[in-house]
Amino acid sequence: MNYQAVLEQIHDELKPVIGQGRVASYIPELASVSPKHFGMAVVCIDGTVHTVGDARVNFSIQSISKLFTLVMALKTEGDALWDRLGREPSGNPFNSLVQLEHEHGKPRNPFINAGALVVTDILCTRYAVPETAAVEFLRKLAGHPDVQYDRRVAKSERDTAHRNAAMAYFMKSFGNLKNPVGQVLDAYCRHCAIEMNCVDLARSVLFLANHGVLPSTGERLLTASAAKRLNALMLTCGTYDAAGDFAFRVGLPAKSGVGGGILALVPGECGVCVWSPGLEPSGNSLAGSLALEAFTTITGRSIF
Amino acid sequence: MNYQAVLEQIHDELKPVIGQGRVASYIPELASVSPKHFGMAVVCIDGTVHTVGDARVNFSIQSISKLFTLVMALKTEGDALWDRLGREPSGNPFNSLVQLEHEHGKPRNPFINAGALVVTDILCTRYAVPETAAVEFLRKLAGHPDVQYDRRVAKSERDTAHRNAAMAYFMKSFGNLKNPVGQVLDAYCRHCAIEMNCVDLARSVLFLANHGVLPSTGERLLTASAAKRLNALMLTCGTYDAAGDFAFRVGLPAKSGVGGGILALVPGECGVCVWSPGLEPSGNSLAGSLALEAFTTITGRSIF
Amino acid sequence: MNYQAVLEQIHDELKPVIGQGRVASYIPELASVSPKHFGMAVVCIDGTVHTVGDARVNFSIQSISKLFTLVMALKTEGDALWDRLGREPSGNPFNSLVQLEHEHGKPRNPFINAGALVVTDILCTRYAVPETAAVEFLRKLAGHPDVQYDRRVAKSERDTAHRNAAMAYFMKSFGNLKNPVGQVLDAYCRHCAIEMNCVDLARSVLFLANHGVLPSTGERLLTASAAKRLNALMLTCGTYDAAGDFAFRVGLPAKSGVGGGILALVPGECGVCVWSPGLEPSGNSLAGSLALEAFTTITGRSIF
Amino acid sequence: MNYQAVLEQIHDELKPVIGQGRVASYIPELASVSPKHFGMAVVCIDGTVHTVGDARVNFSIQSISKLFTLVMALKTEGDALWDRLGREPSGNPFNSLVQLEHEHGKPRNPFINAGALVVTDILCTRYAVPETAAVEFLRKLAGHPDVQYDRRVAKSERDTAHRNAAMAYFMKSFGNLKNPVGQVLDAYCRHCAIEMNCVDLARSVLFLANHGVLPSTGERLLTASAAKRLNALMLTCGTYDAAGDFAFRVGLPAKSGVGGGILALVPGECGVCVWSPGLEPSGNSLAGSLALEAFTTITGRSIF
Repeated sequence: MNYQAVLEQIHDELKPVIGQGRVASYIPELASVSPKHFGMAVVCIDGTVHTVGDARVNFSIQSISKLFTLVMALKTEGDALWDRLGREPSGNPFNSLVQLEHEHGKPRNPFINAGALVVTDILCTRYAVPETAAVEFLRKLAGHPDVQYDRRVAKSERDTAHRNAAMAYFMKSFGNLKNPVGQVLDAYCRHCAIEMNCVDLARSVLFLANHGVLPSTGERLLTASAAKRLNALMLTCGTYDAAGDFAFRVGLPAKSGVGGGILALVPGECGVCVWSPGLEPSGNSLAGSLALEAFTTITGRSIF
Repeated sequence: MNYQAVLEQIHDELKPVIGQGRVASYIPELASVSPKHFGMAVVCIDGTVHTVGDARVNFSIQSISKLFTLVMALKTEGDALWDRLGREPSGNPFNSLVQLEHEHGKPRNPFINAGALVVTDILCTRYAVPETAAVEFLRKLAGHPDVQYDRRVAKSERDTAHRNAAMAYFMKSFGNLKNPVGQVLDAYCRHCAIEMNCVDLARSVLFLANHGVLPSTGERLLTASAAKRLNALMLTCGTYDAAGDFAFRVGLPAKSGVGGGILALVPGECGVCVWSPGLEPSGNSLAGSLALEAFTTITGRSIF
Repeated sequence: MNYQAVLEQIHDELKPVIGQGRVASYIPELASVSPKHFGMAVVCIDGTVHTVGDARVNFSIQSISKLFTLVMALKTEGDALWDRLGREPSGNPFNSLVQLEHEHGKPRNPFINAGALVVTDILCTRYAVPETAAVEFLRKLAGHPDVQYDRRVAKSERDTAHRNAAMAYFMKSFGNLKNPVGQVLDAYCRHCAIEMNCVDLARSVLFLANHGVLPSTGERLLTASAAKRLNALMLTCGTYDAAGDFAFRVGLPAKSGVGGGILALVPGECGVCVWSPGLEPSGNSLAGSLALEAFTTITGRSIF
Repeated sequence: MNYQAVLEQIHDELKPVIGQGRVASYIPELASVSPKHFGMAVVCIDGTVHTVGDARVNFSIQSISKLFTLVMALKTEGDALWDRLGREPSGNPFNSLVQLEHEHGKPRNPFINAGALVVTDILCTRYAVPETAAVEFLRKLAGHPDVQYDRRVAKSERDTAHRNAAMAYFMKSFGNLKNPVGQVLDAYCRHCAIEMNCVDLARSVLFLANHGVLPSTGERLLTASAAKRLNALMLTCGTYDAAGDFAFRVGLPAKSGVGGGILALVPGECGVCVWSPGLEPSGNSLAGSLALEAFTTITGRSIF
């Protein structure tokens, strides 16, 4: 497959929509990013890299971090993790408290905010400085020693994290958060504020396309079965309350963030990452969703 | 892949759990089926058939019919269908009215009861006798002229269909049901009462494993893209409110029914159907779910 | 208290708002009533009558009927009635199904539609023709042999009663409706279509202002305790999801209907009925609510 | 009315149930109170006092404080208060977040926790030390210079106030809380930890039975209309999600607390306070509710 040509075709086709959508405004530091950016990268298991547009410009990975913190928690907890977390699509916006009340403080899945807070709580128990552990894990996956989080974005997010604080205290009232709420929120906001680019992210997800093994080193991070299961979870829960529609239109496991990034993978073949900051109402990148839909249409790659 | 050996291994492994779970009791005629049944069939695109246990014993397909009526409606309506129906997992039991009220009478997806009633309403508009059209469609897919619905089961279900009637009237109050409620419920209950066996069902789903083309005749029923999209919908919504967990554990597009059947497929390769009437609390066959989990574990077949 | 002067003052003060609000449109036959009507009557326990405006023009009593059918059911069932019905404000619109699902088919109170359907179901069990029994009961209370229901309004309501049908079937699915749904809906729509005027209604509620005894005949209809309790129920649940605000502003037990009538009472003293068809968003008469608020402000009559 | 005899009769009748119910356990310091306590006081507008049992033993007033902080906020804000707060019964437990999400952070009424947090937020804006202002207001109402809050109870409540913190942060995310969450929670927990006895509380509510005027001094605290409206609010919202049933059975405006106190009043006549720590499931004192029901049955006093 000539992925370079595919990326260029997608970029061409999407030009009219790039810049549409709304940049996430609830985190003040993110609101100033231009909606005109568009970048996309394909990194194959054999290491070849294809890019178009701003594929090497860093952006705030935001909720894409939930995928990697989940992997970290799975590595330390194993399946015991699922005692505190569900694996079902939520069918509700990512920051709703309604379901959490009906289900007694157990979040539906690790990709909604409540679930990621539980995952972060686990990392707070396991690591002295969980955000450092997360950054180091991503440096290893990306093969890039400069991954870092943006302190101003983290602080901006922390200062306005009232709803996440509400969720965290709510789960604490049900006994499903062990560490002090302030500490969990600090770590959570720093995870979200990690900055990476499309190439780094596409490379970082390769182990999930490769049955759990990091292709660059041959190191096994997860069993083949665990890797498959994570892919399934990305497909059913990775794009907020649009997961059904995303699976329908794109058909690849993916995790999106309100920074405008969407990270996807083709099992056995490659990681794909797209970034464009304008969002559709459900919080996924507008141009990014269309780019991935075009990617599967043009390449015929889809898991179905 | 030696599917015959796989099926026998699964049958052996599952013997301790066959008969566990509860047979659906809300339809009186179904409550008398023995929970001891277990059958499983794999039918490959090339036509080869592998079976174990009661794979040729007929059972009530119940909600598995929702897959085939959806295909019929898609063939007549195309994407206009999605104006009246969503494509998102519901996160709620299959017969809940809460979500329907919050979302103004538009069902979340075609595989919950409310959604299937809308699909049936469409067939009531398009066909003089929709249950006959459905039976004929399944005869063609199964290559079996004897497919029929069980009138007693249909009547038993119709007599106790109070909650489905509530949903139908509720959607009618929002204008999302065009035909008289009684007529829609009659057709719906007859679709659910269709009787087939594992071999017939596994063969009937082959066109979805074969990019929309019926392998036996070469007839195209859906575009390749539409077939992929249906598979995605089965994965995210096909097993009630356990879809996330099912994708996580099994990783194949599937549609289950309270008669104890689960119909799945491996894209590009085969249809798989399992039947065992004992259900787990979410309404899926207990032994059937475990059998499909074992199937993907043993064969390594999964879409992820 | 010179109630005649009070009524005239209220009428004068309200002239600017009479005709505002929206006439109920979901029942086609009601949609044609002019919003310009305004009538009000006070009938004292001693039999004196004061009126202003259209106080002797008949209108569709609609949900005000729920008060009288509840009294009929209480007389036959006693407190056993409360096994099938709650006594709490619902906090939701009068025709919501959400609460009904969360509370397993037991309606919150007898003044929301679901609750009144249960009450009607009880009357269907007790009376051969419940609507005739209701009409006769109201003739006795009003001392007026001509009370009748409007067959066209009843039919118009029945033909569009999809949401009430949904609720009825839903409760039947929980076992909280004993008679056939169609029969209950027929009777319910006829109760709602009873036509009366302000004077008749104000007189009909006098027994609740008089400790359960009909003043005209001395007949005891309810114990003093039961009468007090019904007044409490009217105060907390009688005006849909605006009951708290209504108690706050008016401070009298009252029951409203979407025909634009509101029936209230001053314990120990009189019945008060106002009618004006323009409704506020919660379904209560706009001018009627303001008229009752003015009534308590001017007269100092309130239970608090 | 010989209230002394009434109180003694009630005490006698209730002996078998005193000690039943569960003492509130979610605040550790309250869990150690003996459920055997029972006290009741009637204080008339003319100043006469009648008591039985532990009527002069101090207890934690808990949510009864919500009534007095609301009066304080009404005195400073007037009706502008209602822009941030509803006046409707909630129909949900006192600490639910579901309704708050559906209604965009505006609490249903000032007597559920979310509403009282908004009231406390207002006091935090108006007073340097809101808990001191509340204590002083109650000293004036009770005519008792020793009213105080219990620092250990306040701290115990603050340390476990996770759900209240969740609600506060949630409202802050909607912009309906102006002061820092920690500061509002501190003040709120201190209000709840005020200790008083039945005589003091019954005297403190007299101004609401006396058209807004403090009988001991003749000082007007609220207009007659505002006093009536507060009484209406107590009736419809004062006893958590059992308000409808409480109005039905007791028929007096009342406010309860999980410390086991219930404060009620007979308009124009007296304040009534009962205390017994064993609670029924909705959070109201079990013996206290029965005592007030007996009070209205024996005396015939009820507002209906």
